[in-house]
Amino acid sequence: MIQSQEKPDRVLVRIKDLTEEKADEVVWVRGRVHTSRAKGKQCFLVLRQQQFNIQALVAVGQHASKQMVKFAANINKESIVDVEGVVRKAHQKIGGCTQQDVELHVQRIYVISLAEPRLPLQLDDAVRPEVEGEEDGRATVNQDTRLDNRVIDLRTSTSQAVFCLQSGICQLFRETLIRKGFVEIQTPKIISAASEGGANVFTVSYFKSSAYLAQSPQLYKQMCICADFEKVFCVGPVFRAEDSNTHRHLTEFVGLDIEMAFNYHYHEVVDEIADTLVQIFKGLQERFQTEIQTVNKQFPCEPFKFLEPTLRLEYREAVAMLREAGVEMGDEEDLSTPNEKLLGRLVKEKYDTDFYILDKYPLAVRPFYTMPDPVNPKNSNSYDMFMRGEEILSGAQRIHDPQLLTERAKHHGIDLEKIKAYIDSFRFGAPPHAGGGIGLERVTMLYLGLHNVRQTSMFPRDPKRLTP
Amino acid sequence: MIQSQEKPDRVLVRIKDLTEEKADEVVWVRGRVHTSRAKGKQCFLVLRQQQFNIQALVAVGQHASKQMVKFAANINKESIVDVEGVVRKAHQKIGGCTQQDVELHVQRIYVISLAEPRLPLQLDDAVRPEVEGEEDGRATVNQDTRLDNRVIDLRTSTSQAVFCLQSGICQLFRETLIRKGFVEIQTPKIISAASEGGANVFTVSYFKSSAYLAQSPQLYKQMCICADFEKVFCVGPVFRAEDSNTHRHLTEFVGLDIEMAFNYHYHEVVDEIADTLVQIFKGLQERFQTEIQTVNKQFPCEPFKFLEPTLRLEYREAVAMLREAGVEMGDEEDLSTPNEKLLGRLVKEKYDTDFYILDKYPLAVRPFYTMPDPVNPKNSNSYDMFMRGEEILSGAQRIHDPQLLTERAKHHGIDLEKIKAYIDSFRFGAPPHAGGGIGLERVTMLYLGLHNVRQTSMFPRDPKRLTP
Repeated sequence: MIQSQEKPDRVLVRIKDLTEEKADEVVWVRGRVHTSRAKGKQCFLVLRQQQFNIQALVAVGQHASKQMVKFAANINKESIVDVEGVVRKAHQKIGGCTQQDVELHVQRIYVISLAEPRLPLQLDDAVRPEVEGEEDGRATVNQDTRLDNRVIDLRTSTSQAVFCLQSGICQLFRETLIRKGFVEIQTPKIISAASEGGANVFTVSYFKSSAYLAQSPQLYKQMCICADFEKVFCVGPVFRAEDSNTHRHLTEFVGLDIEMAFNYHYHEVVDEIADTLVQIFKGLQERFQTEIQTVNKQFPCEPFKFLEPTLRLEYREAVAMLREAGVEMGDEEDLSTPNEKLLGRLVKEKYDTDFYILDKYPLAVRPFYTMPDPVNPKNSNSYDMFMRGEEILSGAQRIHDPQLLTERAKHHGIDLEKIKAYIDSFRFGAPPHAGGGIGLERVTMLYLGLHNVRQTSMFPRDPKRLTP
Repeated sequence: MIQSQEKPDRVLVRIKDLTEEKADEVVWVRGRVHTSRAKGKQCFLVLRQQQFNIQALVAVGQHASKQMVKFAANINKESIVDVEGVVRKAHQKIGGCTQQDVELHVQRIYVISLAEPRLPLQLDDAVRPEVEGEEDGRATVNQDTRLDNRVIDLRTSTSQAVFCLQSGICQLFRETLIRKGFVEIQTPKIISAASEGGANVFTVSYFKSSAYLAQSPQLYKQMCICADFEKVFCVGPVFRAEDSNTHRHLTEFVGLDIEMAFNYHYHEVVDEIADTLVQIFKGLQERFQTEIQTVNKQFPCEPFKFLEPTLRLEYREAVAMLREAGVEMGDEEDLSTPNEKLLGRLVKEKYDTDFYILDKYPLAVRPFYTMPDPVNPKNSNSYDMFMRGEEILSGAQRIHDPQLLTERAKHHGIDLEKIKAYIDSFRFGAPPHAGGGIGLERVTMLYLGLHNVRQTSMFPRDPKRLTP
């Protein structure tokens, strides 16, 4: 066991750097035993390091005894080993390894951390496309087994790629906004009052009293706007006590939130948000091509398409498109999930984009703090954004006038006492502002064309899952 | 009220861009009425935009009527106005404004958002140094008034600077780690078991059952290491149900967390963490000089000093230094808060640094998962980092062997059943690893030489404060 006994000079080479250029060099490598196959006086190991792997040969001869071959053959899969070996050109391409042109001829091998002999799931099964599983009757791994054994499931090349790309989404989101002059804020998650009426909120015991978990950072983002930060963003957990067991709902997810003061029209904000998403899509294409391809191998999918500038449709246009496709719905009716999906397909056919904005929602289907449309009082200055026909962002111009806000809250039957602090934030001068919240897991899922948000949350939380 | 009625062409100029070069131009500006002073046929306004302000003159004449002067004089402080005016060179430097060389001769003025007439606190009082308040008997604002009216308190130049700098700390932290090859992860905050014995943890009602709020992302960071992500970081809320009412404890704070697999010695990780902090300190010096100076005006303080490479002392050396200074303490005794402070002063005197690492803590004072020292079993492979004599990071090599981990947990009297999932994470091969967690609010406070962590949390949470 490495207990930091010493600081040896030994350099560990990365598996991805083992190429023909290193032929005949003696190197040390640390990796996991991905597979192991003994064959007479030889043992073939595949050593893995993240998404890369190489074949290692332990053969009875000058450097290895019979015992050593036997020892190597008996190391449990997923154990971590340190191996000293000579890099040798392979006589033929080594299938199934990322390093196809070289193999490692092992001289010494030490076990750094031994895995238990029985793995709860096999990594090869966990990356097998569903289709292969169905057609060839080969094993795949179901979602609960994956999630119950997430530490192993996260080692697959697909999982590694998904979460490296997700890290990239956060980075691109922040990079873009910082370049646009936004300030990052940190908002509290424990709050004293459930601002939107109190439904779907988790309760926390707080010393001798109780509190709630924030369903969104919106109130705090707006307070920052009232405090003159002008353009703010935050990245953090959002909690929803909804008993929804669907492919796209989690009880805890990561919100990428934006709020911005504008000069004259909330479209100034809509344009900034849409451009931020476009910058994310572009950055992913440029920097994460390998990851996208790795995920595609297991989950094939059309590349994500978008337009510049982003397509913006009005709600009434969407309703017209749906009606033309045979859907019966009222002007002020909200979009159902199937209609959302259908609309996505219609928009894709007509405009060839997987990303668009739906603007001017009926006032009746939006929260009380949504600014009504100045021309048609049945509409509102609010918008959703969609990727592959699913909502990833909801936003609006917020009412910044305390009097109108009070009226609207009353109209919605909201207890004014409970939202007093919220309304009071606007009493000392508030600039017009708008914003929105993006669900990180949904963006990752839909960009990659995956089908369940649990694939893009490392440790997902839903009404039935709290572990690991 | 701006309800997004139209999209005018009008360009709003930033107050900070109003310099002599713009003399005699007609511009539109949006700003807050910072002060207003009527004097016969004239009214002098100071218009503020974040940290910048300019004098605006409304005078009876060609462009302004008597009524308009009266109207301007009656606009409540903190209201937001749109002003059209001519930029004029000032005859003499205008004291009290950031734009000292020009003033604005107002032609039109519109109220965009009217503030209520009575402000709960005055911005000028809120930025006054304590000393001036005490010596000259001028008003300052106490902390509770500030926090109760945070939307206004955050408008002061000091608050603006503090939180822009804090945004910079997060940015520098991530920039540095991404450059070093780290991956950002998102860890759940709602967890099923309180891993470290269950003290100081908030309980959440979770549908028909109950759950806890994570006291740190440590378990999840470690699981990511066991899942081969190798180097990970996360930025997110951390919850502590401690009834501590001190200048440096919050019940919810932002953790900047790092975890990293290493090759042979945990000092590989210590060096990376220390370098990350050094890169933050350097980045702040380079990019946030204005903000540092703004805060210093209200809270004077010595510039923050650090060495490269970072000073690393062993715990026994610290004990020796304290004993030399007259402190009585045992070899395996933890540092008390006053001794921490004293040690900080002794280290500053001897080494001229405000930042250092204390390594090799006694095993007895560290959590059960801390790797014991390989030579002296009374010591451990653990460390704290300090800024201006206060702890900002606690970390260690973690035990990655399930058997040793089990033994140590038993020794600490921890219920093995409760930490089963944690121990099981290490059963399928785990690399040696170490990490640590940094408190964002503490780093901000100590870098700027402030004295209360509530000054560096936008909306602080403590046992007595849950609002706003």
